[in-house]
Amino acid sequence: MELSKYSSKLLEEAVEVFAGLPGIGRKTALRLVLFLLRQDKEVIGRFGETLLRLRDEIRYCSVCNNISDKEVCDICASPHRDHSTVCVVEGPQDVMAIENTGQYHGVYHVLGGLISPVDGVGPDDLVVSPLEERVKKGEVKEIILALSPTMEGDTTNFYLFRRFRDSGLKITTLARGVAVGGELEYADEVTLGRSIANRTPFEETFRF
Amino acid sequence: MELSKYSSKLLEEAVEVFAGLPGIGRKTALRLVLFLLRQDKEVIGRFGETLLRLRDEIRYCSVCNNISDKEVCDICASPHRDHSTVCVVEGPQDVMAIENTGQYHGVYHVLGGLISPVDGVGPDDLVVSPLEERVKKGEVKEIILALSPTMEGDTTNFYLFRRFRDSGLKITTLARGVAVGGELEYADEVTLGRSIANRTPFEETFRF
Repeated sequence: MELSKYSSKLLEEAVEVFAGLPGIGRKTALRLVLFLLRQDKEVIGRFGETLLRLRDEIRYCSVCNNISDKEVCDICASPHRDHSTVCVVEGPQDVMAIENTGQYHGVYHVLGGLISPVDGVGPDDLVVSPLEERVKKGEVKEIILALSPTMEGDTTNFYLFRRFRDSGLKITTLARGVAVGGELEYADEVTLGRSIANRTPFEETFRF
Repeated sequence: MELSKYSSKLLEEAVEVFAGLPGIGRKTALRLVLFLLRQDKEVIGRFGETLLRLRDEIRYCSVCNNISDKEVCDICASPHRDHSTVCVVEGPQDVMAIENTGQYHGVYHVLGGLISPVDGVGPDDLVVSPLEERVKKGEVKEIILALSPTMEGDTTNFYLFRRFRDSGLKITTLARGVAVGGELEYADEVTLGRSIANRTPFEETFRF
């Protein structure tokens, strides 16, 4: 669909902002804008105002860097969590995913990204200093590196390992292996190889 | 993903407005919001402000009801278009689709919807009166009903046909038949049946 075909400059601009979102092309963007125009004006207004509030009011927990409405988020403020174990994750979606398992009772640190030379993201673009401060205070005993098992995740894992290995902390990472419910024959060689190399005593698989 | 798991009320609200869009679930909505939060603040600001402008400034052509920045849209204002032929369509996306063919030189009328009892859309919810005014002025000679070949489209076609049949206009509709480039064996029976019943002289298929 050509640009010049839009009947209105404003329509074109609205299509453009939606098409700037990941996974949304110009055709889908147009569909979304026309959908909004068919709704009540309040729906569009609420959408726009929520975005402006997102720009102006969004805050990050001063302890763990997760998105929060307060200076310190609920998890970091909770006396029921184990504050000596810090799970290091890429983003807020990972905190949600781990919280959803109901298996983790420690606290978090949100890096806000992964080292990715291709995308121009270096170590300085990650939020690490609040974690260092917590470590210096001596309240942290273990850091769990819970980053995606990708090239970027492994690079960042290694960077953090080097940065914290002399601090006397226990540094662990997520177990790599065959997925629960997955068919063995479809597991890739690297994963299957690692899961054999790092095999665990049978009774330990029932820890949870 | 449970609601209570969101670390911020504002984040939850932002996810909700995105999840209100068609084809976007809560998980995708969260991904889009977190994507926006990783961008510059101006990107979110531009998004929000464009939506507020969409709410406040969007206008519709007073002649054809298409989205327009002006009182009368470029197509309706053009002296190069055939103003005696009006193509009646459901929405602005259909105007764009027909304009993209480059085959149509008449003008349009945008209904803004189709009659759909299931969705609670009746004839009064459609924009028809500006078309009636144009017909009364006597400048229109032919109305092309170019609505989707669905139940709703056919219902609306029939409603418009009854409303305009006594006005002495030529009322036509899009040719139904096998799609260009489609395999005959995969065409549905109704379409194939109609394309046989309404077969056209061979030389006419080269009119364009």
